[in-house]
Amino acid sequence: MQSMGQAARQASQAMARAGTREKNNALLALAALLRASRAQLQAANALDLEQAAAKGLDGPLLDRLKLGDSALETVALGCEQLAAMPDPIGEITGVKRRPTGISVGQMRVPLGVFGMIYESRPNVTIEAASLAIKSGNACILRGGSEALHSNLALAACVRQALQQAGLPADAVQLVPTPDRAAVGRLIAMPEFVDVIIPRGGKGLIERIAADARVPVIKHLDGNCHTYVDAAVDIDQALAVTDNAKTQKYSPCNATESLLVHSAQASAFLPRIAALFARKGVEMRGCPRTLDLIRSVPGVRSAPASEADWSEEYLAPVISVKVVDSLDEAIAHINRYGSHHTDAILTTDHPSAMRFLREVDSASVMVNASTRFADGFEYGLGAEIGISTDKFHARGPVGLEGLTSMKWVVLGQGEVRT
Amino acid sequence: MQSMGQAARQASQAMARAGTREKNNALLALAALLRASRAQLQAANALDLEQAAAKGLDGPLLDRLKLGDSALETVALGCEQLAAMPDPIGEITGVKRRPTGISVGQMRVPLGVFGMIYESRPNVTIEAASLAIKSGNACILRGGSEALHSNLALAACVRQALQQAGLPADAVQLVPTPDRAAVGRLIAMPEFVDVIIPRGGKGLIERIAADARVPVIKHLDGNCHTYVDAAVDIDQALAVTDNAKTQKYSPCNATESLLVHSAQASAFLPRIAALFARKGVEMRGCPRTLDLIRSVPGVRSAPASEADWSEEYLAPVISVKVVDSLDEAIAHINRYGSHHTDAILTTDHPSAMRFLREVDSASVMVNASTRFADGFEYGLGAEIGISTDKFHARGPVGLEGLTSMKWVVLGQGEVRT
Repeated sequence: MQSMGQAARQASQAMARAGTREKNNALLALAALLRASRAQLQAANALDLEQAAAKGLDGPLLDRLKLGDSALETVALGCEQLAAMPDPIGEITGVKRRPTGISVGQMRVPLGVFGMIYESRPNVTIEAASLAIKSGNACILRGGSEALHSNLALAACVRQALQQAGLPADAVQLVPTPDRAAVGRLIAMPEFVDVIIPRGGKGLIERIAADARVPVIKHLDGNCHTYVDAAVDIDQALAVTDNAKTQKYSPCNATESLLVHSAQASAFLPRIAALFARKGVEMRGCPRTLDLIRSVPGVRSAPASEADWSEEYLAPVISVKVVDSLDEAIAHINRYGSHHTDAILTTDHPSAMRFLREVDSASVMVNASTRFADGFEYGLGAEIGISTDKFHARGPVGLEGLTSMKWVVLGQGEVRT
Repeated sequence: MQSMGQAARQASQAMARAGTREKNNALLALAALLRASRAQLQAANALDLEQAAAKGLDGPLLDRLKLGDSALETVALGCEQLAAMPDPIGEITGVKRRPTGISVGQMRVPLGVFGMIYESRPNVTIEAASLAIKSGNACILRGGSEALHSNLALAACVRQALQQAGLPADAVQLVPTPDRAAVGRLIAMPEFVDVIIPRGGKGLIERIAADARVPVIKHLDGNCHTYVDAAVDIDQALAVTDNAKTQKYSPCNATESLLVHSAQASAFLPRIAALFARKGVEMRGCPRTLDLIRSVPGVRSAPASEADWSEEYLAPVISVKVVDSLDEAIAHINRYGSHHTDAILTTDHPSAMRFLREVDSASVMVNASTRFADGFEYGLGAEIGISTDKFHARGPVGLEGLTSMKWVVLGQGEVRT
């Protein structure tokens, strides 16, 4: 791990100096290699799939592990899209002349080396590698052990693409063993690794955050709220709430908790309950909610416990509470939420502005589905992770989250008096 | 400490909502109170000075501790200058419409609560308090025990100013005891404190960074370099190098190490040595440097040891090395420097650009004195600290370093498909 760290640090210097053309050439070479190596990549992936099936791993995990034609084409396209994006590195902004004569501004530069720890999705190997290349960073990747054959084959493509473009192959290194102790060492080498980006279950991320000796870009969970305000377009609110909860249950930006202003509760709740009933979504409600939805045909409901307000279900379950004011909604979200993504549905401008200002979350939305909290949807071109911390990157993290701004001072021999 | 933390967290919510007028009124009220309370403040300060003198504390410490008329006027003026600055909070930038119909941008919001740990400069109490007010944060201040009477009197002015402006007095709290255990608790309350800003000796800051359970905005030392390139205006280089080293010896942005390209060494080194000789600056040189300055009248020189290249002297001492290329200079700085502030003196544009890009420091300068690395000189209006980390704020930290950007999404009922 030590020698991988040293190699990464050294490669990061060449990557920081690398020209835009070299980096884009590496990305295009990588896309071409992924397509040309489909047979070898899928043969390696087949080994992983066999071993996983033999271990009795469940269906969703096998789905994530599988490197099918369309998954390979998606990551190849992703590399080409990154190549087409502007280079974030070297941008100089905000240069202002000061009374002393010097000009002061800020230049965007790579962070250096990032470590990425993730589970058994081999596509993440290419996503992380391509973001590292474009942002001029080096990275050390530690994927799930179930995907090791696939990841080794993918990493070989990345090395080859880097070499073809005249960039150091060690800019992207994959930890080649399933040894769990490697993670502990990777997160505790501040001399070689500048930031850790973990993806995975809450327990894993909590352990990494507790033990890491470098900054960690992370979110633990996504207990996202949709709040239906007193003044609202009910039909729009039904469509948005439905989408936020049911378009997909597993993502961290799916709505897990619904708050409804008491002025709209009797108009809105029976209708959304009918919608949820058709889709089999269970509603864990406060007493007022349960009263209003009780007679909806086919409704699945249960009283919400205190724990429900904090729960990230990632399933067809939603907690529902009637509130008497915007203040109560904001206070509830700031208390029970996970500072990930929360939306207000309203036609009232002051309510919208207060919600945007006062809800302390990475993404705050007006009249939109919480499902939009995503690097691609925000126009970042890519997403390496989502942060619910306030330091450095917040919310969906793309290329800029892998950079830092240093100050540049341009003078003509000025001295300080 | 727990109850101070709770009070700070609660006050931070009101501060985040506070209007620009209320925050500015608090700053103007504070400036007025500092002037009106001069007698009481100086009486409290006299107690601290007496006790410090009785303990036999040294002259420089007593200087820093003293709250003279001009020190008080400076902090009062600082409050008025902050009041005149634009409010950073609520700024919404980069709003772009996406193909889905939503508009996505970022809103600047306060971090929440910061903890400030500092030594015996009572003026820092007002600097930190005024930055907290303007940036909409709450803060908990822990000053040096020698300044406790002064700080308590100053903090009383701050509370009164906040109340006069209709803001919560608990937005600025001072730890009222010299108890050292308070620091340990302050840095380990992630539920109440979002970031710690320590100022003081390297040992203190290292301990805080190692033990803190929240992010720390810090720099450990300032081993700043000035590099005289092969193509250079020698007279300008002499003036800038002299200023960078001798204008003041104690600041972290003073130059501690001088690198000279071998093409200029024989022209430049004897002349800078003559200048340093007049000011009593000792030169710890490489063998080539010592050869070139040996015969300069009055020169104080010694061979540089390996340790000298990493040393922050904060004194009339400078390490000096002749290098054979820009590459060697950049490699030396990235290896031995502290990533604080480094300058190139050159007339060559490619050298200037390479230095700016490749030196991995918070501030990189061309043809200017390293002494300019400062929040006021950069136009930030104030400085709460300097960071040599790459995460979040880097370099001099002003109001923006106490804020975070959250994503705002403005829709018209869009759903994700």
